[in-house]
Amino acid sequence: MSGEETTVDLNSDLGESYGIWVLGQDAAMMEYITSANVACGFHAGDPSVMRRTVRLAREKGVAVGAHPGYPDLWGFGRRAMALSRQEIVDAVVYQVGALQAIARAEGVPVLYVKPHGALYNQAERDPQAAEAVAEAVQQAGSRLALVGPPGSALAAAAAARGLAFVPEVFADRAYDDEGRLVPRDRPGSVITDVGAVARRAVEMVQRAEVRSVGGRVLPLTVGTICLHGDTPGAPELARAVRTSLESAGVRVRAFARCRG
Amino acid sequence: MSGEETTVDLNSDLGESYGIWVLGQDAAMMEYITSANVACGFHAGDPSVMRRTVRLAREKGVAVGAHPGYPDLWGFGRRAMALSRQEIVDAVVYQVGALQAIARAEGVPVLYVKPHGALYNQAERDPQAAEAVAEAVQQAGSRLALVGPPGSALAAAAAARGLAFVPEVFADRAYDDEGRLVPRDRPGSVITDVGAVARRAVEMVQRAEVRSVGGRVLPLTVGTICLHGDTPGAPELARAVRTSLESAGVRVRAFARCRG
Amino acid sequence: MSGEETTVDLNSDLGESYGIWVLGQDAAMMEYITSANVACGFHAGDPSVMRRTVRLAREKGVAVGAHPGYPDLWGFGRRAMALSRQEIVDAVVYQVGALQAIARAEGVPVLYVKPHGALYNQAERDPQAAEAVAEAVQQAGSRLALVGPPGSALAAAAAARGLAFVPEVFADRAYDDEGRLVPRDRPGSVITDVGAVARRAVEMVQRAEVRSVGGRVLPLTVGTICLHGDTPGAPELARAVRTSLESAGVRVRAFARCRG
Amino acid sequence: MSGEETTVDLNSDLGESYGIWVLGQDAAMMEYITSANVACGFHAGDPSVMRRTVRLAREKGVAVGAHPGYPDLWGFGRRAMALSRQEIVDAVVYQVGALQAIARAEGVPVLYVKPHGALYNQAERDPQAAEAVAEAVQQAGSRLALVGPPGSALAAAAAARGLAFVPEVFADRAYDDEGRLVPRDRPGSVITDVGAVARRAVEMVQRAEVRSVGGRVLPLTVGTICLHGDTPGAPELARAVRTSLESAGVRVRAFARCRG
Repeated sequence: MSGEETTVDLNSDLGESYGIWVLGQDAAMMEYITSANVACGFHAGDPSVMRRTVRLAREKGVAVGAHPGYPDLWGFGRRAMALSRQEIVDAVVYQVGALQAIARAEGVPVLYVKPHGALYNQAERDPQAAEAVAEAVQQAGSRLALVGPPGSALAAAAAARGLAFVPEVFADRAYDDEGRLVPRDRPGSVITDVGAVARRAVEMVQRAEVRSVGGRVLPLTVGTICLHGDTPGAPELARAVRTSLESAGVRVRAFARCRG
Repeated sequence: MSGEETTVDLNSDLGESYGIWVLGQDAAMMEYITSANVACGFHAGDPSVMRRTVRLAREKGVAVGAHPGYPDLWGFGRRAMALSRQEIVDAVVYQVGALQAIARAEGVPVLYVKPHGALYNQAERDPQAAEAVAEAVQQAGSRLALVGPPGSALAAAAAARGLAFVPEVFADRAYDDEGRLVPRDRPGSVITDVGAVARRAVEMVQRAEVRSVGGRVLPLTVGTICLHGDTPGAPELARAVRTSLESAGVRVRAFARCRG
Repeated sequence: MSGEETTVDLNSDLGESYGIWVLGQDAAMMEYITSANVACGFHAGDPSVMRRTVRLAREKGVAVGAHPGYPDLWGFGRRAMALSRQEIVDAVVYQVGALQAIARAEGVPVLYVKPHGALYNQAERDPQAAEAVAEAVQQAGSRLALVGPPGSALAAAAAARGLAFVPEVFADRAYDDEGRLVPRDRPGSVITDVGAVARRAVEMVQRAEVRSVGGRVLPLTVGTICLHGDTPGAPELARAVRTSLESAGVRVRAFARCRG
Repeated sequence: MSGEETTVDLNSDLGESYGIWVLGQDAAMMEYITSANVACGFHAGDPSVMRRTVRLAREKGVAVGAHPGYPDLWGFGRRAMALSRQEIVDAVVYQVGALQAIARAEGVPVLYVKPHGALYNQAERDPQAAEAVAEAVQQAGSRLALVGPPGSALAAAAAARGLAFVPEVFADRAYDDEGRLVPRDRPGSVITDVGAVARRAVEMVQRAEVRSVGGRVLPLTVGTICLHGDTPGAPELARAVRTSLESAGVRVRAFARCRG
């Protein structure tokens, strides 16, 4: 990142349609984000959806990352599954490789990996799952960055392997006093006011801190802000966040770009 | 190939286990073949089976190719499926890419692609399917060779794109007067006598011809001979074919090898 | 049907969501239709979607039928697949049985079967597939009716087994001079004007005939009219058809009702 | 059970093949067992495998039960999966219903349900999962019995609903001092000596107790003994157990039989 200006990346989980089923507003979201996490077929995203998503990202100048998940279409990869360490490694390498070939066919590099759903949650807390994901990413491509929660087991596993790790925060989610996301089923866990979310994004980036539900001010390293793409007002929220960031002098750009 | 000695490749469809289910005698077959067609998860071969198969190939010095099929585990990719042209392209790129990443993780290149089952049959006759497979192979890697039936729509599609095409023959199958395989459900379609198959393999390679069921002698370009890996006596048959070829002065080696 | 009044059934393919993915406007459609064809998990409809759909049908007093398809979530059961005759029988019995148990759990009977997508199309023309579907329906329940195209191979197979067959017509689709649906990719194949569709429905029912694209008047037995549930204006179209039918003195009611 | 003679049931997990993949020695096992737990398609057992298994059971006079599992072919239903309570209910009702229809097509009733793999393990310990399985069984058929571990959460859930519960024991597995199975990865967890297993089976049935690895004698109610069908010597072990039981005066017969 630049030493003179503050920058941040905006990412969103896209390419989550499957066959006849449409999910998300990918084209609209791509107007505002800088990195697209593309589902890889195990929890969403058939091969043709993957190609269309990559093509859209290329047209909009959005960086492409792989978004691998558990093999569970019915559960959208959100149900915890007891894969062995090696199964996680193999499933992640498989999915990243599938996207790499499709992206290559479209003339686009895959620049990073962000695990999806229950795999993301497991890699946040469970060192073995985190290590499996990090090993897979390293095997799939030595230059791939890894996106995940700051301070997580995944961050540690990435560091241990010398992988670039990009800490991800959520501007529309409440954090508890330990810096963890308040679970979705708790009241107040999701911030829905567009202006509040946009202000929060600016504060997170400029101050590198977040105010918890308990009122504590917690330090927070922000590499990328995740914006949800599957709610009705998602594109409007994304636009507001981006506009507010840029108005505040923050440069919004992809953390990962192809090098030579 | 060498201008002085006759060479041939021996390939087999391997990595066709799935989860708890074991199919084929991969380790035994790898003693005799030179190219392993590795299933890619759509009709067989989960990610961990794929890795184990690639590792075995590396240990035995066997070349690795991708063996993509229709998305049909129940039908093992043998049931014709009406995918659109683009769906075939995307499904093949996806599967080849998945194997490429797993092979890369094991330090092995994927050198060729051979479509599986109903996709193979469709690409033999149907120009649109053939063109889709060829396009996918070209997109997945410009140096990938394509294995398929000599004189097929797939051969033509490969030629049109400048892809290396390796004609595949079956030493244990009867050919009709047009040079096509006699369907499996016809009497005499499969030759089970080991000695007869081994002699036939030598004749095919040395004379570049095959005697049809109708007694005609047909020209036949032999790039690789397919050996089935899922019958009880498969390894013995493979050994007999290889031994006979080598005794006859034919050098058995992979058609595809990694270049620099 | 009554000897004094004209009646007709209105059916729609519902329960076609899957996991996180929502398809169709089931609740709105159930206000106007009398029979719900419920997807059974192979092409759409996970077990929980199936239950919610059956429950909704029960609440609205709509008859429940099974809507089995090919095992192809990616292709939504619309891609032809070469299942063997026995595989079709087994796949249909399996799916109907799954729905029967879920419906029984909700206190609702499954009253009929209508094959979906590519299986419907295949059973229309191919006697072997038609016979397989009819055999499956008979095995799954002796009182189950079978819904399909009038004059089809499926109608013949149902007759041969003594199954109740309900001929299905499409008020919003053009018919050719042989009484077949004009394929969707032809211009004019789908009638989008709501008033025209509603008038056409009334004419089909009252006159038992339809005017083909070539201007011929073809006889047409109407047991049920299919209304699509997955287009934006689907519920409005359904309402218009129902209102027009009732205004014309046609009684709209399920062809199949539970008997003591 | 008879008041005068001691009886026991012998069950085995069968129908675990899938498409081209063969698992287990179903025909041989059916010579010795009295109840066949038939996989229902989610972790193993495609619709045609299910039918062939039911037909075999009918021919051998073996009672048929449903053996539903998690939707995970790759993991064979052995990987824990975080389905919601309602998802478990719906997935079990779906699978049991599918088998009921196939069995009905073969003129055979489904008499009981035994959950498979990770679902079995979860229903043993977790009251919510146990309650979900019991609710599903009750919904799928009021006369269905439920097979599971004695003293488990599943046993309690069955009792709470008034379902017949059949306690299952394993003659070839070691029990710890709390009456739980010693996990498979511990030394001595599996007893491989055929004579020892056969003697153990007789003791379990006649004395209604088992000696734990710690030397304690634990009470054990035996409704059915599970015999594994997927090991090389499985049929021989099954024969030895059955012969020993009958020699000791124990009558081997299905716990569940169709009641007029």
